[in-house]
Amino acid sequence: MASPQIQNTASTGEEMHALVRKLYPICRSITGEGVRETLRILEQYAPIQVYEVPSGTAVFDWTVPKEWNIKEAYIKDPSGRTVVDFRQHNLHILQYSVPVRARMPLSELREHLFTLPEQPDRIPYRTSYYREAWGFAMTHRQLSELPEGEYEVVIDSKLEPGHLTYGECRLPGRRAEEILISTHVCHPSLANDNLSGIAVAAFLAGILQGREREYSYRLVFVPGLIGPVTWLAQNEAATPGIRHGLVLTCLGDPGGFTYKKSRRGDADIDRAMAHVLAHDGTPYRIIDFSPVGYDERQYCSPGFNLPLGCLMRTPHGEFPEYHTSADNPDFVTAASLGGALGLCLRVLDVLEKNRKCINLYPRCEPQLGKRGLYRTVGGTSAAYAELARLWVLNLSDGDHTLLDIAVRSGIPFEAVAEAAGELERHGLLEALQVHDHSTKS
Amino acid sequence: MASPQIQNTASTGEEMHALVRKLYPICRSITGEGVRETLRILEQYAPIQVYEVPSGTAVFDWTVPKEWNIKEAYIKDPSGRTVVDFRQHNLHILQYSVPVRARMPLSELREHLFTLPEQPDRIPYRTSYYREAWGFAMTHRQLSELPEGEYEVVIDSKLEPGHLTYGECRLPGRRAEEILISTHVCHPSLANDNLSGIAVAAFLAGILQGREREYSYRLVFVPGLIGPVTWLAQNEAATPGIRHGLVLTCLGDPGGFTYKKSRRGDADIDRAMAHVLAHDGTPYRIIDFSPVGYDERQYCSPGFNLPLGCLMRTPHGEFPEYHTSADNPDFVTAASLGGALGLCLRVLDVLEKNRKCINLYPRCEPQLGKRGLYRTVGGTSAAYAELARLWVLNLSDGDHTLLDIAVRSGIPFEAVAEAAGELERHGLLEALQVHDHSTKS
Amino acid sequence: MASPQIQNTASTGEEMHALVRKLYPICRSITGEGVRETLRILEQYAPIQVYEVPSGTAVFDWTVPKEWNIKEAYIKDPSGRTVVDFRQHNLHILQYSVPVRARMPLSELREHLFTLPEQPDRIPYRTSYYREAWGFAMTHRQLSELPEGEYEVVIDSKLEPGHLTYGECRLPGRRAEEILISTHVCHPSLANDNLSGIAVAAFLAGILQGREREYSYRLVFVPGLIGPVTWLAQNEAATPGIRHGLVLTCLGDPGGFTYKKSRRGDADIDRAMAHVLAHDGTPYRIIDFSPVGYDERQYCSPGFNLPLGCLMRTPHGEFPEYHTSADNPDFVTAASLGGALGLCLRVLDVLEKNRKCINLYPRCEPQLGKRGLYRTVGGTSAAYAELARLWVLNLSDGDHTLLDIAVRSGIPFEAVAEAAGELERHGLLEALQVHDHSTKS
Repeated sequence: MASPQIQNTASTGEEMHALVRKLYPICRSITGEGVRETLRILEQYAPIQVYEVPSGTAVFDWTVPKEWNIKEAYIKDPSGRTVVDFRQHNLHILQYSVPVRARMPLSELREHLFTLPEQPDRIPYRTSYYREAWGFAMTHRQLSELPEGEYEVVIDSKLEPGHLTYGECRLPGRRAEEILISTHVCHPSLANDNLSGIAVAAFLAGILQGREREYSYRLVFVPGLIGPVTWLAQNEAATPGIRHGLVLTCLGDPGGFTYKKSRRGDADIDRAMAHVLAHDGTPYRIIDFSPVGYDERQYCSPGFNLPLGCLMRTPHGEFPEYHTSADNPDFVTAASLGGALGLCLRVLDVLEKNRKCINLYPRCEPQLGKRGLYRTVGGTSAAYAELARLWVLNLSDGDHTLLDIAVRSGIPFEAVAEAAGELERHGLLEALQVHDHSTKS
Repeated sequence: MASPQIQNTASTGEEMHALVRKLYPICRSITGEGVRETLRILEQYAPIQVYEVPSGTAVFDWTVPKEWNIKEAYIKDPSGRTVVDFRQHNLHILQYSVPVRARMPLSELREHLFTLPEQPDRIPYRTSYYREAWGFAMTHRQLSELPEGEYEVVIDSKLEPGHLTYGECRLPGRRAEEILISTHVCHPSLANDNLSGIAVAAFLAGILQGREREYSYRLVFVPGLIGPVTWLAQNEAATPGIRHGLVLTCLGDPGGFTYKKSRRGDADIDRAMAHVLAHDGTPYRIIDFSPVGYDERQYCSPGFNLPLGCLMRTPHGEFPEYHTSADNPDFVTAASLGGALGLCLRVLDVLEKNRKCINLYPRCEPQLGKRGLYRTVGGTSAAYAELARLWVLNLSDGDHTLLDIAVRSGIPFEAVAEAAGELERHGLLEALQVHDHSTKS
Repeated sequence: MASPQIQNTASTGEEMHALVRKLYPICRSITGEGVRETLRILEQYAPIQVYEVPSGTAVFDWTVPKEWNIKEAYIKDPSGRTVVDFRQHNLHILQYSVPVRARMPLSELREHLFTLPEQPDRIPYRTSYYREAWGFAMTHRQLSELPEGEYEVVIDSKLEPGHLTYGECRLPGRRAEEILISTHVCHPSLANDNLSGIAVAAFLAGILQGREREYSYRLVFVPGLIGPVTWLAQNEAATPGIRHGLVLTCLGDPGGFTYKKSRRGDADIDRAMAHVLAHDGTPYRIIDFSPVGYDERQYCSPGFNLPLGCLMRTPHGEFPEYHTSADNPDFVTAASLGGALGLCLRVLDVLEKNRKCINLYPRCEPQLGKRGLYRTVGGTSAAYAELARLWVLNLSDGDHTLLDIAVRSGIPFEAVAEAAGELERHGLLEALQVHDHSTKS
C-alpha cells in the first residue's frame, strides 16, 4: 500500500463533493429507480456489481417490500395555484406514498401535511415504508399561508412488486478474510445523510482497487435497515470471514469525528480507530455501542456480532440540519469529505499492516550498532526510529501485534510498522504465519 | 409481585415509627426476656418462629453465653437520694452486669461509672458480655454533681444458664434458593441502632408474606455477633442455598443511604443495589467491604463468603447520637424508615425478576413494527420503551442477565424487565431455564 | 530480619558518601583496571567474587570487547602549554580512545574535541566503545580560548585482548529462589551515575550478609549493557530461579524516588515497591516499563522477562548534571543515599516476609477476646492492630498473600505481617507451605 496521505488531498475532497452534488437531485428510496440511477453513477468510480432482490423475498424476520417509484406529485390551492410540487424538492413527498388523485378541504388535507414548526423554513424528511399512507412535507411557513378552501392533490406513484436494489464492490486480497464497508443509499436529497458516506465509500473502493491488498474487501451500498438485513440473509455464509468493518455515514459536516465502537467494544477495528484518532490531532470522540443508530444495528445483532464500528462526524439527530432540506450540498464540505477518506485509509493501513512478529534474538537486546540500526549521530527522528525498534524487539514475544505495540508505546503505528519491516530485513524479526480460516468465496 | 412503590407510603413509615416507639422501652440484650418480648411483638407483623439455644452450646469458636436478666438497679447517694435508677433508662446499666448489693465511697464507685465527657447530657451505651463486671452509665453532668461520701449500690440481675433467643421468618418461594435478611435485636433503648433495622425487616417480612415469591426468604432477628455465629452454626447446611442477602441497620436517621458491598464485591446484590440507588435520585454512597461493622462480618467470613451486603443510612460511629441516649425515637423519622423499606423492596424486585433470556431472532433485528412494538407516533416514553426492547434483544445472547442489560444500557431495571416480558409474550424472547441447585429445606 | 529502620541512619548515609568519594577518582570503563580497582575496594564492604571473561567471548548477539586501559593523555598548544590533561579529570578522555601520538593544526584537532556549548563550564562524558576512535572532552570555555596553530596530541592507551571484569556477591538463603540486585560499574568520575547505585548495592550486600535470609541473593556489579548481557549469558540456567529484582542507579541526587516497573508490570517487586512508597511519605513517582533506560533493558528482554524493576531518584537525562563533570560527589548527599538504602531494605523486608496464610477458623470470626487479641481498652494503636488482625483473618482464604491484604486494606505491610505472626502463634492462622521450584545453585 502506498502511503495513504497521498490520497487525502484537497482535490480528492473536491471530487467527492462534486459526486455529492451529482447525486443530490436523485429521488432515492429503499427501492426503486433512484437507487439504480445512483449505483449507475457510482460504477464510474469503482467496480460495483448491482443485485436485484424480488419483492416478497423473506429475509430473516423481514420481507423485501414492494418497489416504489414516483413520477409527479403536487398540491393545488383553491385558486388552482400549485403550492407544493415534488419536482421542486424530493423531500416534499412522504416516502412510499401510495397514489392519490383527489380533492379535499384544507382541514382534511392537513392530516397529510408534515412540517417543522420550530424550523419554519425547512422541509422535513418523512417516510412510511411499512404502513401504507400518503402525505406531503413542506415548510411550516408554506403551511401557515395556505388559504381555506378545496385543494387538489395528485400523487402519481407506483407501489408494486419489483425489486430491492443494492450494490457491492468486491476486491479480492491476498487473504480470503474480509473487511466490510457498508453505507446506506436510501435517502433522497440529503447530503450529509448520506451522500457523504456514499462518496467516501465509493472513493475508498476506487483507491483500494488500485492497490495490493492483504485483506479481501466488500463495499456494500444498501438501503438502510432492510438493506443490511437483505445482504446478511443473502451472504450469511460469508459472515464468519469478516474480520473488520465500518459503517460510514454523516461524514461531510464540519464537526469532528465520532466513532461508535462495535458491539464487541475491543475489536481490532475499535483499537485501530482509537489509535489513529489519538495521533491524528483532530477533534474526535469515541462512544460505546448501542442498538440505536445506523446499520451497525444489524451487523452487530447478537446472531452476527460482527466487528464493525460506525464512523461519523456529527451523529444523526445532533445537527439541526438532520433530516431536513437544510442538509444540502452546501452543508457538507470538500475538506470534511477528504478528511474522512484520509482517516479511513489510515485505519485500513493499520489493519492491513498489523501482524504479530517474533523477536529472533529474544535474550538481551541484539546488537543494533553492528547492523547500522543504532544512531551514531543524534537527532530527534533517528532517536525516534531507534525507540520504535527497541519497542518492537521488546514486545515481539508472540503475544503482541504491531498495533498492541503502537498502543503500549504511544508511537504511531506507521513508525512501529516501519521499524518492524527494517528489523525483518535484518533478520532480527520474523512475522508469525497468519492462518486464514475463511473460505475464498 | 405488585409494584413495590405502593408499599412505600407515608402511612407505612408512620406504622414503622409506631413499632419503633413500642419496642423502645424494652431492655434487650444479647440474651434474656427483652429479646423474647421483642419477638412476641414482632410476631404481630410477620410469621416469626422463635428459637431458643441453651447456654453453653458450642457455636464454631464461640460458646452461647449465660442468659442475663435484670429487675432493678440503682445508686443512692450519702443522703439516701436515688441518683441513678435503671427504671428511668435502660442505658443506665452496664449490659451483663453481675448482681451487686454494696456500699462504697464515691472514689471506689467511680471505677464503675461510665459517662461521655464530651457529650455531658447523654448517657452512653456500655456492655461487658464476655468479661464479668458491673457498672452504671450516666450523663457526665450527673457524675460531676455527685457529692463525696458513701453510696449504696444495688444491681438485682441474674446471669445464669438459660438460652440465647432468636427469631426467624421463613417464606418459601418458587425456588428453594434463598434470600437472607438479617438484623440485630440485642440493643436496649436505641432507636436507630437498631429498632430501625428491626422495623424495616419486620415490615419487609409482612409484605413479602403476601406476595408470590420467586425466591425463598429467611428474615432473621438475632443478637449481634453471637447471633449470626449461632444461626450459622445451626444452619450451616442451608448456607450454600443463600443467593443474596442484606444486613439491615441504622435505617431511620435523616442521612442518605450507605451501602457496604459484600466481600465478593460484585455479587448480584451489590450490582442490584448500585443500580437501584443510581436511579433513585436520593443521596447515597457505596463503600467496599471491610471486616469491621455489623453482622456481615460473620456472613462474609471466608468460610462462608455469602453474598450479603449491609444497608445503612449513616454508618455506626458517624452520627454523634450513636450508642447514646440521644439515639431515641425522635432521632428516627417515619420518612427515613419508609424510604429504606421502599429501597429494599425495589432491590428485591430486581433480584426476583432478574433472569437470563435468549433472543429467538438473533440474526438482525426482528421486525418490531409488524408486532406493534415499534412506535408509529413519537413521544418520549414510547421511544424509551422501544429503546429498552432494542437493548434487551441485542444483549439477550445467553451471556447477559436483565440486570446486566439495565446496567449496560443505563435504563432502569423495571423498564428492561417490562420490555423483556413484552418480547416474551410476542415470542421474540425466551427466558433461560433456571437450575436451582439448592435443596428445598 | 531485624527492623530495617535501624539501618537507615544518618551515619550509614555518611559512610556511603565516603565510599562514593573514595571511588570517584578511579577511571572506570566497561573493561580494564578501573573496574578491578573498584571491585577490590567494594570487597571491603561485602563478600564479592570477581569474574574475568576473556575478550572475544560470544555472549548472545554480542562479543566481549577488547580491554581498554589508559596511562596518560594530553593536548599541548602551539606554545607547548598543556591545555587538556587526563590526569586532571577522567572525563577529559573519550572512553575507549585508541592510542595517538601526533601533531595537527587546531582545525583538524577540533573534530576530536567534545564540549557542551549550552553548559560551557562542564566537561561532557563521551564514549566510543564499539567503533574505534579517539577524542578529548573539555569545557566549551576551554575550547573557545584555544589559539590557532599546531597542537601536540598524546593518548597513551591500550586497546588489546584482555577481560571484562564483574563482581558478584552471592548470599544463600533458606530458599534457593533468588533476589537479584544489579548495578553498573562502568562510569568514570560520575557520582550519581553510578557511584550512588554502587554504594547502595554494596551496603545492601553488607547488611544482608549479616541477616537470616528467606531468599538467596545475588548482587551483581557489572559494566552497563555488555555487563548484564555477559552475566545473563554465563548464568542463563539460574535465571528461572530469580523471583524478584532491582536495578539500582542514580540514587544520590536530591530528587524524590522514581520507580520504573518491570516489563511484567504487576510483579511482586512492582506491588511491594508501590505499597512501601505509598506509605513512606516521601515524594515519588512510578513509571511504566519501557525498553530505554538502564540494564533492566537486558533483564526484561522478552527471552528473559525477569521481574526486575529499576529504582532511581531523578532518572537519567532529567537532571542537568547528567553525564557531565558536575555529577561529582558534591551533587550526591548522604541523606539521599541513606534514604535509598532504607527504601530498599523496607521493600526487601516485604518480599522476605510476604506469604500466603490460611485462616484455620474460617467460619465466622474466631473469638479474639478469649485469646487476649481483642482490645478491652481503647487507644488508636490497639484498634489498628485489631483491624489488621480482622483483615488478615478475613482474607487468608488461600487466594491472598499478606501483601495483597496490605494493599486491599490500606494497612502498612509491617502491621499486617505482625498481625499474621500473632495469629499464627495463637493457632488461628497457618502459613501455606512454599514450594521452591528453583535449584540450589
